[in-house]
Amino acid sequence: MSVGPDEWETYFHNNEPPGNLEDVKSSVDRFVKEHGASNRKIALVTSGGTTVPLESNTVRFVDNFSAGNRGSSSTEYFLLNGYAVIFMHREKSLLPYLRHFHFQNFLDWFKLTSSVEQQASLELSVSSELHDRLVKQLSVYEKVKKENRLLHISFTTVTEYLFLLKAIAKIFDRLGAIGIFYLAAAVSDFYLPAPEMPEHKIQSTGALSITMKQVPKLLSPLVREWAPKAFTVSFKLETNKDLLISKAKQAIERYQHQVVIANQLDTRKRMVVLVTSSDEKIIDMSDAELTQGQEIEQKIVEDIVKQHNLFIASS
Amino acid sequence: MSVGPDEWETYFHNNEPPGNLEDVKSSVDRFVKEHGASNRKIALVTSGGTTVPLESNTVRFVDNFSAGNRGSSSTEYFLLNGYAVIFMHREKSLLPYLRHFHFQNFLDWFKLTSSVEQQASLELSVSSELHDRLVKQLSVYEKVKKENRLLHISFTTVTEYLFLLKAIAKIFDRLGAIGIFYLAAAVSDFYLPAPEMPEHKIQSTGALSITMKQVPKLLSPLVREWAPKAFTVSFKLETNKDLLISKAKQAIERYQHQVVIANQLDTRKRMVVLVTSSDEKIIDMSDAELTQGQEIEQKIVEDIVKQHNLFIASS
Repeated sequence: MSVGPDEWETYFHNNEPPGNLEDVKSSVDRFVKEHGASNRKIALVTSGGTTVPLESNTVRFVDNFSAGNRGSSSTEYFLLNGYAVIFMHREKSLLPYLRHFHFQNFLDWFKLTSSVEQQASLELSVSSELHDRLVKQLSVYEKVKKENRLLHISFTTVTEYLFLLKAIAKIFDRLGAIGIFYLAAAVSDFYLPAPEMPEHKIQSTGALSITMKQVPKLLSPLVREWAPKAFTVSFKLETNKDLLISKAKQAIERYQHQVVIANQLDTRKRMVVLVTSSDEKIIDMSDAELTQGQEIEQKIVEDIVKQHNLFIASS
Repeated sequence: MSVGPDEWETYFHNNEPPGNLEDVKSSVDRFVKEHGASNRKIALVTSGGTTVPLESNTVRFVDNFSAGNRGSSSTEYFLLNGYAVIFMHREKSLLPYLRHFHFQNFLDWFKLTSSVEQQASLELSVSSELHDRLVKQLSVYEKVKKENRLLHISFTTVTEYLFLLKAIAKIFDRLGAIGIFYLAAAVSDFYLPAPEMPEHKIQSTGALSITMKQVPKLLSPLVREWAPKAFTVSFKLETNKDLLISKAKQAIERYQHQVVIANQLDTRKRMVVLVTSSDEKIIDMSDAELTQGQEIEQKIVEDIVKQHNLFIASS
C-alpha cells in the first residue's frame, strides 16, 4: 500500500487551501531569510491536534486529543539552544511561555482600589509564586522577542495543516541542513473527502455512519520532495506499547528520515524512545526530576540538537 | 420513534458516571440551598460543546463546534438581572467576564524593569483600553464573587454532561418555579456505545468507518421527570434556515417545555427566534447596536427573565 505523489496531488486538488496561505508564505519567507542569513539553525515545530470537519458548514468535527504540551515546551528548549523557531500550532492550543499560566482565575489576580479622586483604579495583587513565575518567563520571552526568534503560525483543520506544512517545507528546503522539522502535532490519519461531505448539519434521526479515507502520510513527500536536505524528526504515539517500537522502526525504514520519537499516551511525560536507523535510545525522567518540575522535552531537545549538529557537520 | 425512560435507563446503565459526580452534587446542593433560602432565582446555564470519544484510551473524539459564547455571555446577563447562576461549561470554553480578554499576548502586557537593587521587578504596562476593560469587568465580577452568585461546573464528554445535568436537575426540582434551565450547550446527538469502542488507538490502515447511535433527547426526561416544575429554555441550531422554525415548533410540541430559541449558525449573533407554544418572537440587532458592542444575549435574557417572572407568578 505505497503512497505515491499521485495521492498527494489528488488530496491537494480535492481540498481548498487556507485563505491565509500567501500571508503565511511571506512571513515564513522573511523569517527564514533573516535567520538563514546569519546561519542560525531554524526549527519548524508543529503542535496540537488537527480537526476533520464532518459538514462543510461545520458544526461537527473529529478531533485528536492533544493540548500541545510537547510542541510548546520543546519550542522553549529549541529557543534556549539558540534556534529560531516557527511554531505551527493548533489554534487555542498551548503556547510557549504562556503555557505556564492558568487563566481561569485571572480576574482574581487583580484588586480594584479607590484612589483619592474616587476613581476606580487597578492594582495587580498576585501571589509571590505567580510574581516569580511571571518574572522568570518574561526574562526569557523578552530576549526571544527582541531577537525575533519565534514566529507563530496557526491551523485548525487537517487540510490547513497539510497545505501550510507543504508551503513552509518548500521554503525551508533553501536552508539545507540547518533546517529541522520537529513534527509533534497530532495529525489526523483520516479525513472526509469534500465531495462526500453534507452541506448542512447532519440530522439527528437514526444512527450516524461516517466513512473516512486515510490521509496520505506526509512524511513521504516531505522527505523525498519538499525538503530532502533538512533534518526530520517525527513522533509516533500509541496507547498499546507492544506496537510502539515496531511501528517506529517501520516508519524510519519506510520514509528514510532521521528520528522517530516513540511515545505512549499514558507515560509520555516520563519516557520516550528515540529511534534512528541504527539506534534506539531511551530517554526517561526520574521521580526526583519530575518532582522538581523538570521536563522530558529538555532532554529530548538536547539530544536532537546534538544529532542535528552532527548531521550539519556531515553534510 | 418515541424516546421513553427505558432508553435513558439503558444509556445511564451502559456508561460510567464522571468521577466528580458526588462532589458536584454537594456543591450544587449547597449553592441551591443558600440562594433558594433567600428566594433568589437560580439559572442553570449550559455552555460549549460536548465530545464523543472514539476510543476508550481516548486519542480521537468527535466534537461539536461551540466556543461557548452564547452561554458565557448569557450568564453575565442573568447575573446582571439578579440571578444566581450555575455555569455548566465545556472545559476550556469561554468563561463569563474572562471571555473579554485574549491571552495570546498576555506576556506583552508586562515589562521587566531593573530596580535600584538590580533585582528584576515587574511592571504592568497595559494599554488604557485594556486597563479600562479590566476595571469594567472587575467591578462587576467582584460583586458577583462576594455574593457567591456564580458556580462553575465543567464537563468534556457527552456522557459527563448527561450525568451532571440529570443530577443537577434533580436538586433543582426542589426550587419549583424559581429554577430555570437555559440549555445553550451544543450537545452531541450521537455517541459511540462503550461496548463498541476499541480499547486502543484505531490503526490507520485503510478506511475508517464509525457508526454512532442517537443520544436519547434529554428534554424528555428533564421536563417530565427530573424537574417538571422548572422553567426550561432549549436551543435549536441549524445551518439550514428552511428547517429551523419547523423544528423548533416540533420540539415545543413534543417536549412541552417553555421556550425554544431558534438560531442559525451564520446569523446567530444578529438574530434569533423565541418560540413558545403560543408565539414566535424575533429578537434582532441593528448594525448600530452591533457596532457599539452590544450583544444579542442581553435582549434574549431580558425577554426570558420577563417570561420567567410571569411563569413564577402563575405557578
